Amino acid sequence: MNEIVKGKQSLLFLHAPRIVSASSVVGSKESEGPLRKLFDRAEKDDLFGAQTWEEAESTMQKEACMTALCKAGISAEEIRYLFGGDLLRQGIATSMGVEDFRIPMFGLYGACSTSGEALALAAMSASAGYGKYMLAVTSSHFGSAEKEFRFPLGYANQRPLSAQWTVTGSGAFIVGGADEGRKTDERTVPEMSGVPEQSRRFGHVCISGITVGKIVDYGLKDSQNMGACMAPAAMDTIMRNFGDMGRTAAYYDRIITGDLGYIGSSILTDLMKGQGQDIRGRHLDCGMTIFDRETQDTHAGGSGCGCAAVTLAAYVLPKIESGEWGRVLFVPTGALMSTVSFNEGASVPGIAHGIVLEHF
Amino acid sequence: MNEIVKGKQSLLFLHAPRIVSASSVVGSKESEGPLRKLFDRAEKDDLFGAQTWEEAESTMQKEACMTALCKAGISAEEIRYLFGGDLLRQGIATSMGVEDFRIPMFGLYGACSTSGEALALAAMSASAGYGKYMLAVTSSHFGSAEKEFRFPLGYANQRPLSAQWTVTGSGAFIVGGADEGRKTDERTVPEMSGVPEQSRRFGHVCISGITVGKIVDYGLKDSQNMGACMAPAAMDTIMRNFGDMGRTAAYYDRIITGDLGYIGSSILTDLMKGQGQDIRGRHLDCGMTIFDRETQDTHAGGSGCGCAAVTLAAYVLPKIESGEWGRVLFVPTGALMSTVSFNEGASVPGIAHGIVLEHF
Repeated sequence: MNEIVKGKQSLLFLHAPRIVSASSVVGSKESEGPLRKLFDRAEKDDLFGAQTWEEAESTMQKEACMTALCKAGISAEEIRYLFGGDLLRQGIATSMGVEDFRIPMFGLYGACSTSGEALALAAMSASAGYGKYMLAVTSSHFGSAEKEFRFPLGYANQRPLSAQWTVTGSGAFIVGGADEGRKTDERTVPEMSGVPEQSRRFGHVCISGITVGKIVDYGLKDSQNMGACMAPAAMDTIMRNFGDMGRTAAYYDRIITGDLGYIGSSILTDLMKGQGQDIRGRHLDCGMTIFDRETQDTHAGGSGCGCAAVTLAAYVLPKIESGEWGRVLFVPTGALMSTVSFNEGASVPGIAHGIVLEHF
Repeated sequence: MNEIVKGKQSLLFLHAPRIVSASSVVGSKESEGPLRKLFDRAEKDDLFGAQTWEEAESTMQKEACMTALCKAGISAEEIRYLFGGDLLRQGIATSMGVEDFRIPMFGLYGACSTSGEALALAAMSASAGYGKYMLAVTSSHFGSAEKEFRFPLGYANQRPLSAQWTVTGSGAFIVGGADEGRKTDERTVPEMSGVPEQSRRFGHVCISGITVGKIVDYGLKDSQNMGACMAPAAMDTIMRNFGDMGRTAAYYDRIITGDLGYIGSSILTDLMKGQGQDIRGRHLDCGMTIFDRETQDTHAGGSGCGCAAVTLAAYVLPKIESGEWGRVLFVPTGALMSTVSFNEGASVPGIAHGIVLEHF
């Protein structure tokens, strides 16, 4: 056994892998939200020039990957392995989105926790020396998700107030070994003066550890209230992170959940309080950050794999890069269900993966 | 960069992880096939006592995991990470099947290549020292797959001759670090006399390397001829394995594809010939092995994640354990499609992962 194995579910990397670059590509609603100026690309046409929502989602993934590669200053051939997934049946947005890159790939499904799952596996692979660069990518699309999980948009489906709005967006992340990072600063200074900060390669963001989540099932069955279904999994992973690493909430500048939204976040705060941990003041949820509650009617907030991914890429990582936040626990959450399992009366368990991001 | 990285897509493990145990649980048709005596559990009731095909598939996965744990003589708590997936939308058979074990988990989607994807990630994690034991599990079910991809069974859907028959089965594999394996022999001798060979823990099977596949798209669109869609991916991964590791077909006692079936296997033989590699005599396909062509009408052979997984567990690994086969390249293949992508006219690309299994 290795020193890097911590507790029951976590790994602490002795040679922490770096996030070398990150990209965000979003749709029209996101481009009108509070983070509008931070995204790499915000498209007014939610079809992204494609004929179907699925193709549109694949197009976003492709653009997110290309943008992340471009920022890192490397080519697709330099990526050893790709870890990617989305919400659609048989992960088709990813298969179609990344196939042109011809990168050896691992297809993932972790519902809206997929960005965490992909970053965890990319970090594990980079830290083990299995290659110089790994690529983690994920996406969701409002149009394809409504069609997949509810009804095609043309049906003008009514949504309850507990429902969340699937983010149209894709985020991609290049993860490199411990030798990637700071050394590149010299290179960025002369070449990149005048380049906006969010267009740059990172030099100060590392993944110092991970906490892999387990499935947590409180027996909830309301697929239109996914925040409630996922909050117990978020609590479980956060508490496990604290336990495995001997930390409390105070260790982190921010604890950032993926898409619990307003209802799920309030439940998480209560659940954490029940565990003796007060996360108010340092908790932030991507589903509450990406849309404006007053002017953008999304009911309980944003959701989808893309929600956590683009918020991480556009908003969170630059703050870590600049040193504004030194330590962040990023916890994307997923609700494990399908229309079939829902129609058959199964419960909706949750899963959440914890990624410890640090300024170095 | 580490010595273990070989060529463009492969890893050669300096300290090769072991397959400590493997299990196979199958349904009625499989229990009447040529491998009937080798499966750990063959159930006449394809519902496995459940109410729905999906629940039945989850039940199989649960039993496969329990059997693999039992053979290895370890508990679920000793498993560090679980890598699992299935064919259903949002991988629901796996989520519902493994949740009770409460093992930190990575959900995967690689279509019928998932057993290879799971074994690759389990081996990567074990070899890196990220935990003592990993669990890889996958499944497919004829009833749930027909419902997912074609029509519910009650519709008595007609199948073309190029179609394959989805195997009802689940295979689970415990993967341990390099220190697991041979030492356990002493323990098995006194305790296990009288225990049938297939009920035992393995002591001589290692994963010496992997070749992670990339998506290969020849533009084929016939989802009822998946063997043809997947054969190019199998060729690509096998040739990449040879190239990365400096080998030819002669290095392996057997090259075993997952579920190309009769049509896909014949295409693979031709494609390999075009590359100057003759694999006849040493090629075997799980989809051609699990059912009897004369007496069991499956058209082009067996398919599904479960096909490769249970054939590996019940038939292939015991031959490696006994030393009958010294080196095997196991190449499960997947066709990346969904009913949505098919209906929208998208092509069906393939992916295949290579796992090098050796007797030690």
